[in-house]
Amino acid sequence: MKRLLLFSLCALLLGTFSANAQFPGFAPQTPSDPPKEDFVPSELNQPGQEYPMVNSQGYARFRINAPKATSVVVSLGLGGRGGTVLQQDADGYWVGTTAGPLDEGFHYYHLTIDGGVFNDPGTHNYFGSCRWESGIEIPAHDRAFYEDRDVPHGTVQEVRFWSKSQDKLLRAFVYVPPTYDAGKKAFPVLYLQHGWGENEYAWFNQGKANLIMDNLIAEGKIEPFLVVTTYGMINDVPMGHMNEYTAEDFETVLCDELVPYIDSHYNTRTDKFGRAMAGLSMGGYETSIITLRRPEVFGYYGLLSGGTYTPKDIKDPGQVKGIFIGCGSKENADAVNKSAADLRDAGINAQSYISEGTAHEFLTWRRILREMAPTLFK
Amino acid sequence: MKRLLLFSLCALLLGTFSANAQFPGFAPQTPSDPPKEDFVPSELNQPGQEYPMVNSQGYARFRINAPKATSVVVSLGLGGRGGTVLQQDADGYWVGTTAGPLDEGFHYYHLTIDGGVFNDPGTHNYFGSCRWESGIEIPAHDRAFYEDRDVPHGTVQEVRFWSKSQDKLLRAFVYVPPTYDAGKKAFPVLYLQHGWGENEYAWFNQGKANLIMDNLIAEGKIEPFLVVTTYGMINDVPMGHMNEYTAEDFETVLCDELVPYIDSHYNTRTDKFGRAMAGLSMGGYETSIITLRRPEVFGYYGLLSGGTYTPKDIKDPGQVKGIFIGCGSKENADAVNKSAADLRDAGINAQSYISEGTAHEFLTWRRILREMAPTLFK
Repeated sequence: MKRLLLFSLCALLLGTFSANAQFPGFAPQTPSDPPKEDFVPSELNQPGQEYPMVNSQGYARFRINAPKATSVVVSLGLGGRGGTVLQQDADGYWVGTTAGPLDEGFHYYHLTIDGGVFNDPGTHNYFGSCRWESGIEIPAHDRAFYEDRDVPHGTVQEVRFWSKSQDKLLRAFVYVPPTYDAGKKAFPVLYLQHGWGENEYAWFNQGKANLIMDNLIAEGKIEPFLVVTTYGMINDVPMGHMNEYTAEDFETVLCDELVPYIDSHYNTRTDKFGRAMAGLSMGGYETSIITLRRPEVFGYYGLLSGGTYTPKDIKDPGQVKGIFIGCGSKENADAVNKSAADLRDAGINAQSYISEGTAHEFLTWRRILREMAPTLFK
Repeated sequence: MKRLLLFSLCALLLGTFSANAQFPGFAPQTPSDPPKEDFVPSELNQPGQEYPMVNSQGYARFRINAPKATSVVVSLGLGGRGGTVLQQDADGYWVGTTAGPLDEGFHYYHLTIDGGVFNDPGTHNYFGSCRWESGIEIPAHDRAFYEDRDVPHGTVQEVRFWSKSQDKLLRAFVYVPPTYDAGKKAFPVLYLQHGWGENEYAWFNQGKANLIMDNLIAEGKIEPFLVVTTYGMINDVPMGHMNEYTAEDFETVLCDELVPYIDSHYNTRTDKFGRAMAGLSMGGYETSIITLRRPEVFGYYGLLSGGTYTPKDIKDPGQVKGIFIGCGSKENADAVNKSAADLRDAGINAQSYISEGTAHEFLTWRRILREMAPTLFK
């Protein structure tokens, strides 16, 4: 509950959420058009699982085995904005299709069965909403940039580092490009944060950040750099004091523990202009407050559906070499574009990008990463 | 179904499954003793989740929110060998406690709700039985060897390699010790396989292999080596032809694609005596047939609750420098000990280890890894 309040606060503060954002994955529907019967299993299904399925228009179809249940509802699809209510068929399975096509890209969802929340046993799980949720992928028309290809692949390295401030072992993931060679050149580092309710797995599981990087590197579009993710929700925010959320505990872990750990275990550039911080949604909020409080640590900033900077925020235009701000076209694109324009007017190198046809979801953030990566460490 | 048949075949072939093995996690119970009321949340719970809980005796207690369900059964605990049947309390939650203590260590489980199989939303998920299952951990009295400690930690690196034989991108995980330095000494490599229905995540998630290695290295008990896991169930076994399961597709991926990939991307020993193969359960079966078919690739063999070798299997005693065979005391310990003794009588360096008080489960395999690791690459 306190996390829900925190999320609401962030949404309010950041002003990048449009009315649609509270109904992620909802695209306008034409109920009179029946879906095309070209459904295939979702690419995120568990091995051998036929359902959930998706069709070429973006409709999703579900089938759940719970013969004695009295009610099964999928949190996605919004028939009447309550989700997709499944109906029991003659074989006892609960089946149903979304009332309209979903947005392209990745969607979290869950089932409500007889009043309790469970995952769809057909799919893989992805951590979101502070729980492992079911995931479904509507193939995007431009998905080539994060698809598996026969190109050189970097590694995603699970790092365990002891946090003195938290007195426990914490986890980070480090994307290491295929061209990295510890003995040779020092690599820049992007610290990339997940959103509210997600964790350090998000950017590499549902975000496909490693494949995006591999493909950009293979195409010669970027100078390779490391990408580091860690858990950003370690602050305990007291109930009723949400406006006090300052991410200070996280700032300590990130700036005083993780950055030194990475710099001492990898061959990295240790100057601030060899280091970027970016984040999506709440991770963008954390990025904005931490980069401004610690201008000596990061030299590039990125906000992905996670608020904006104003020229006033930047005390010294020389403190930052690049700011990248993005969101989906179904979010508050005007605010994002205006922020970048205002920053440019103030002499700051700022760019914005709007992901066409997407909302507060991972296809938006995959695309922003693709657009932001070539602008970093120039 | 075909996988179930395969599993049954393996069990039959290997002869290491005792009658208890089909009821994993079942320890003899004294129903007249009520459990001690010192329950705490299982360490594998999702953030903030109170249930499932475990007590100091190894009892597990479950609470599921599904107010309108008619039946909720936990696949673990074996009240009457049907699992733990939950009862609805006055608040509408389904609650229940195992009829007796569970074995120490990790257990997979799932819920049957109104006739359908779902996961417990309280816990993290672990891939077993060809699906992501719920997991619960009964703290073992000797758990220090795989606990988080403030020692130097290696990394677990997710590697994506293109398989020509499978025509797709495959995944492996590589444990890289904290003392690894690509520019210095070549490291030996252990290829470590999961069991039936599991995948390449198993050894590092539920198996804690990285923490076991970190702790052994910190204590100076082993010469550090890399540990590589990959998916071993890529063979398609035709229904009704289970006796034809030869793991040949997997052998091609492992020996002709993954081993060369690892050797070209890490500083490894490339002689066979710098390379070991081991596996648990079905992974042990794969180990036994692949090591014997490819004596030029691996110089150390390990079977963890995964069958035995006979002296006849070893064509040339010089082909292998060490064989390690282990299982739980609730499995077929006599066959394991006899196999090692027979091999020793034939002049082969073989050792066995029996994990006391455990069955066909991960605490057995964590312990065997701890015992086997110091014997490798001598």
